[in-house]
Amino acid sequence: MRTMKAAVFLHPGKIVLDDKPIPVAGAGEALIKITTTTICGTDVHILKGEFPVEAGRTIGHEPVGVIAELGPGMTGYLLGQRVIVGAITPCGQCHSCLDGHQSQCGGKAAGGWRFGNTIDGCQAEYLLVPHAMSNLEPIPDGLTDEQVLMCPDIMSTGFGGAENGEIKIGDAVVIFAQGPIGLCATAGAKLKGASLIIAVDGVSARLEVAKKLGADAIIDYTKTDPLTEIMRLTNGRGVDVAIEALGTQQTFENCLRALKPGGTLSSLGVYSGKISMPLDAFAAGLGDHKIITTLCPGGKERMRRLMNVVASGRVDLKPMVTHRFKLDQIEQAYELFANQRDGVLKIAITP
Amino acid sequence: MRTMKAAVFLHPGKIVLDDKPIPVAGAGEALIKITTTTICGTDVHILKGEFPVEAGRTIGHEPVGVIAELGPGMTGYLLGQRVIVGAITPCGQCHSCLDGHQSQCGGKAAGGWRFGNTIDGCQAEYLLVPHAMSNLEPIPDGLTDEQVLMCPDIMSTGFGGAENGEIKIGDAVVIFAQGPIGLCATAGAKLKGASLIIAVDGVSARLEVAKKLGADAIIDYTKTDPLTEIMRLTNGRGVDVAIEALGTQQTFENCLRALKPGGTLSSLGVYSGKISMPLDAFAAGLGDHKIITTLCPGGKERMRRLMNVVASGRVDLKPMVTHRFKLDQIEQAYELFANQRDGVLKIAITP
Amino acid sequence: MRTMKAAVFLHPGKIVLDDKPIPVAGAGEALIKITTTTICGTDVHILKGEFPVEAGRTIGHEPVGVIAELGPGMTGYLLGQRVIVGAITPCGQCHSCLDGHQSQCGGKAAGGWRFGNTIDGCQAEYLLVPHAMSNLEPIPDGLTDEQVLMCPDIMSTGFGGAENGEIKIGDAVVIFAQGPIGLCATAGAKLKGASLIIAVDGVSARLEVAKKLGADAIIDYTKTDPLTEIMRLTNGRGVDVAIEALGTQQTFENCLRALKPGGTLSSLGVYSGKISMPLDAFAAGLGDHKIITTLCPGGKERMRRLMNVVASGRVDLKPMVTHRFKLDQIEQAYELFANQRDGVLKIAITP
Amino acid sequence: MRTMKAAVFLHPGKIVLDDKPIPVAGAGEALIKITTTTICGTDVHILKGEFPVEAGRTIGHEPVGVIAELGPGMTGYLLGQRVIVGAITPCGQCHSCLDGHQSQCGGKAAGGWRFGNTIDGCQAEYLLVPHAMSNLEPIPDGLTDEQVLMCPDIMSTGFGGAENGEIKIGDAVVIFAQGPIGLCATAGAKLKGASLIIAVDGVSARLEVAKKLGADAIIDYTKTDPLTEIMRLTNGRGVDVAIEALGTQQTFENCLRALKPGGTLSSLGVYSGKISMPLDAFAAGLGDHKIITTLCPGGKERMRRLMNVVASGRVDLKPMVTHRFKLDQIEQAYELFANQRDGVLKIAITP
Repeated sequence: MRTMKAAVFLHPGKIVLDDKPIPVAGAGEALIKITTTTICGTDVHILKGEFPVEAGRTIGHEPVGVIAELGPGMTGYLLGQRVIVGAITPCGQCHSCLDGHQSQCGGKAAGGWRFGNTIDGCQAEYLLVPHAMSNLEPIPDGLTDEQVLMCPDIMSTGFGGAENGEIKIGDAVVIFAQGPIGLCATAGAKLKGASLIIAVDGVSARLEVAKKLGADAIIDYTKTDPLTEIMRLTNGRGVDVAIEALGTQQTFENCLRALKPGGTLSSLGVYSGKISMPLDAFAAGLGDHKIITTLCPGGKERMRRLMNVVASGRVDLKPMVTHRFKLDQIEQAYELFANQRDGVLKIAITP
Repeated sequence: MRTMKAAVFLHPGKIVLDDKPIPVAGAGEALIKITTTTICGTDVHILKGEFPVEAGRTIGHEPVGVIAELGPGMTGYLLGQRVIVGAITPCGQCHSCLDGHQSQCGGKAAGGWRFGNTIDGCQAEYLLVPHAMSNLEPIPDGLTDEQVLMCPDIMSTGFGGAENGEIKIGDAVVIFAQGPIGLCATAGAKLKGASLIIAVDGVSARLEVAKKLGADAIIDYTKTDPLTEIMRLTNGRGVDVAIEALGTQQTFENCLRALKPGGTLSSLGVYSGKISMPLDAFAAGLGDHKIITTLCPGGKERMRRLMNVVASGRVDLKPMVTHRFKLDQIEQAYELFANQRDGVLKIAITP
Repeated sequence: MRTMKAAVFLHPGKIVLDDKPIPVAGAGEALIKITTTTICGTDVHILKGEFPVEAGRTIGHEPVGVIAELGPGMTGYLLGQRVIVGAITPCGQCHSCLDGHQSQCGGKAAGGWRFGNTIDGCQAEYLLVPHAMSNLEPIPDGLTDEQVLMCPDIMSTGFGGAENGEIKIGDAVVIFAQGPIGLCATAGAKLKGASLIIAVDGVSARLEVAKKLGADAIIDYTKTDPLTEIMRLTNGRGVDVAIEALGTQQTFENCLRALKPGGTLSSLGVYSGKISMPLDAFAAGLGDHKIITTLCPGGKERMRRLMNVVASGRVDLKPMVTHRFKLDQIEQAYELFANQRDGVLKIAITP
Repeated sequence: MRTMKAAVFLHPGKIVLDDKPIPVAGAGEALIKITTTTICGTDVHILKGEFPVEAGRTIGHEPVGVIAELGPGMTGYLLGQRVIVGAITPCGQCHSCLDGHQSQCGGKAAGGWRFGNTIDGCQAEYLLVPHAMSNLEPIPDGLTDEQVLMCPDIMSTGFGGAENGEIKIGDAVVIFAQGPIGLCATAGAKLKGASLIIAVDGVSARLEVAKKLGADAIIDYTKTDPLTEIMRLTNGRGVDVAIEALGTQQTFENCLRALKPGGTLSSLGVYSGKISMPLDAFAAGLGDHKIITTLCPGGKERMRRLMNVVASGRVDLKPMVTHRFKLDQIEQAYELFANQRDGVLKIAITP
């Protein structure tokens, strides 16, 4: 039995590099040799024990690689082809998928997110892809691994926040928190035609990246009260759409208070406890609010579209790759990323 | 100066019938002689001091009447014409209205709801209607006052909950609470093509009305656990849309927990404090929830459509008028309605 | 090799009952023993040579049956289970399906409709179902074959015309032609909350069925000018949505002329030549028209929803089954149906 | 009685500069002193007699100016304020406007477009604005007349074509014809997040401007077959959205043929005769096409949004102003524009 290196969750506080058998592709499956992957904030939640996965699980859900093996029933692909796979892997054939809820593949019984959660993930030398007919998408010629590394998760999620927030041409939009997801939401807001994009964070380096990705105005909340400044920038109207990209009570509540009557809160943050909606913010003046939460859209069609956006040059997320590590060094990579040191945004991990 | 009788808020706990001057219609305004009106749950919130209005304000926002006077600039209407006016009175000409948010007419500065809130309402002999070109709609021949009495507020709100919840053909829908608004939401869910409509309440008489208006299944929460029963009825899938029509933490949270992954919570209740969203319900399994709050759609086009629905016979809300009082007896009417005695649903009040 | 009876297209004008091998279910396929099926207007186009299929093709795309065999990879189903399959059989895993265009499964290269077109259909003793994980839906207990016989095609198409026309509560809707598809569109318009449904046809028996299915007004175009009558019924406004269910220049043009400015033409008819849009109708007064064509939505989730609608009793399409034949008599059935004799609407065909 | 200069339609072939009385602002009206305006392709249709207006009508519907007089009931504006007014002037208070169809203000009886059509337009020293509360929008500080000159009509129309075509992130879009409207549609497609924008025209100078405004690929139809090239660029898929911006049979039909199954044709062209939809293009492979026509969205909220887009720098339409004339020279301006000489795109006309 051939083995490979894989980053494995042992217990809260401990993800280690270990040897595991290389999987074999069954019917409708594909085996991918990983050429680049990265670490997500959700992986840190797993590391800290805030999001439970079973011991022994290989972590990681952002794969870039080449096809190493195609199981029975896989047609239209070639061995050696460069591909990406979305973080969420819809089967396309269950009631949820056919009803347009691919991110909730399997419904209540299953939950759409599998990689590095309920099945082994991609912080490893090889990845076994389920429902591979729905999920493998070839990388267009001329794009590097790092150029498409954000597509499987954070670009899809961040853009999804802008899309599900139903941003319209001429909208004013605020994005609370400019971590990787928030930065992608900022880029997504620009791509959807917002005419005033306000980025809020407390780290000036992130606010500088936000400007490059499309923010018209930045607010450092350590120096300026965000709500006062947002009302000033919108002439007292409030924003059309507020995107929450952190997952705290304060950012959630600020989003609600920043909205115009009839505005939309697009929520991307993973909340770590109860969220409270104060009456005066939620139904303020008897409002017509929308609160919409988005889980990363996956599937090969989504990946195709996102890579086309990268290829068109409309969005350049390369500035987000701030560090590079080998898979052998993944424990160091987690240490750096979990502690948010050295201005880290995303870390490219290669074999 | 001519005077009229009007139900006036004095202080928390006190609404009295008093004499007030009959208003005069200015430019773009109309004076309506009220022939039938009713009391809303929101009026009870005002009575109890839970929703603040200034002392001396005439209460009421559900007017049926005839045109008594037309101010300068009013064209296309006739004195004596029977009309209704929505509870919300959009001007049609501000940025909010032109942006499709008529219920939020005036934006942050104003708030869309005026009658019996920021200007005098219709529990009186006469009502002055602002922006009357946008708001007067003639009653089709053959419809009685009582047949259209629900249109200005609760039918518009309840149907709005079904519409904004984006109910689709074949959806499973639960409506928590079967007061007047919830009953209208039940009727609205049927009108939108839901194939399984589940009504929840603790009063059996209300559940019986719910059945007449379209409920396929009823749950008396005093006898049966609603979540268990909802999951049984939906084969474990959860509902596509949950409508909240009460405004308590428990119904709100039950709605979230009843939803399928990717479902929509359509919220009609006026919450009287902080609402808390527990992590495991709100983002359960990293969901894609929508939470949408609706404020009663108004304007003459909305009234035209709702009266057409009544005229078509598709919906019959007359069973909701359980009591009748004269304006002189309005204090008694409030006493009955606020204490929810004698199976009261809605009270028709005539001069 | 076991053989079965099948209705086979030979050449324009000739569909005959012939012997064919019973297919064997491969990976991801299922074999269905047909218990009831029917003939569609499209089959008559094939018979007449107006829609080309290759010689030897088994016709039919509206199957009701039981599972006779499950190929490798088929999970969650049981042999002997009663099921229906949509007329269109989306794979769920191609770019079109994942992009929300299941009816266009395969894109330009394939085209979504296969049964009785590019692969063998269901006017036979057995049917081989491709992509069966996406397409088999169990029939709820208590529903007969005839109750669900309209689901695979005409109910899905007719309701789709109402849904894609974006009918809203209180809309006025006209449906031109009350054949089986038009009748289902009439039922669908009611299910979507239209308050004025106008059915147009020249056969009084069909107009009578239209009334039972939801039409508020009927127009016999042999006696009354439809446009004049529609304008009278809508007080000169025109309809919000016009549904075309025949496929002729005249009905198409009448639909355009019946619309209010900003209205939607929902087109279900299969046109047999060039359709011309006269300037004064198409862009009349520089309009904002929408013209939307619908191909029958398929997939097991769609079938589940439609059968739930039947089970709820909201719609009863049994009056549409006017005749019954055995498979042995299918040539007679075609003869009757193609010539529209004896008030035929739909014919149930059993083994 | 004070008089002013105005460009007046006399008879087909003849628009002349003439003296007319300066209008007086009545209730709800405003008088605007025009500082900049321009000529539209529609004005040329009027000049040629292809679009009928009555003799004596002042032409023009793209006004930039300052408020000279405010009629009774006008609040919130100041004399001397710089404003623009949309080409379409919704009242905001009729059934059409309140139903969300502002461009069809007044319904069948009226038609939404008034300026230079049913009432006097803005190719004059002064313009009387009806329903001025809905229609005057102040120009943000720092923007010049020429920067906002495209907002009232072609930017609103062109962007509307992209919006109504429901362009999504990652879509492939083709725009047939790169006149002023088509160029704005190209800019709008970029603003909506398309990843492949294909511009088609026969004039290389226009294709060069298209590239500046966002086209990724250009096709000179005099040298290359557009359909072949579009299929090559989309790997045989066809485009998601095709925008028609000319109004000829050929461009309309090419749009239909360029679409993927399930694609949308967004039509902006004003057709000058019957448009024919060949069966094989319209319902090719039994498609799910949408055809959507757009009439310029107006109203002050729309103008506010468009000017915000200009102010944000996301779109720069100044390259479209290729010529400048004084109002005294307007007959020369028409001569140049109608004959499309000297690479003219849009002409700024000042007093």
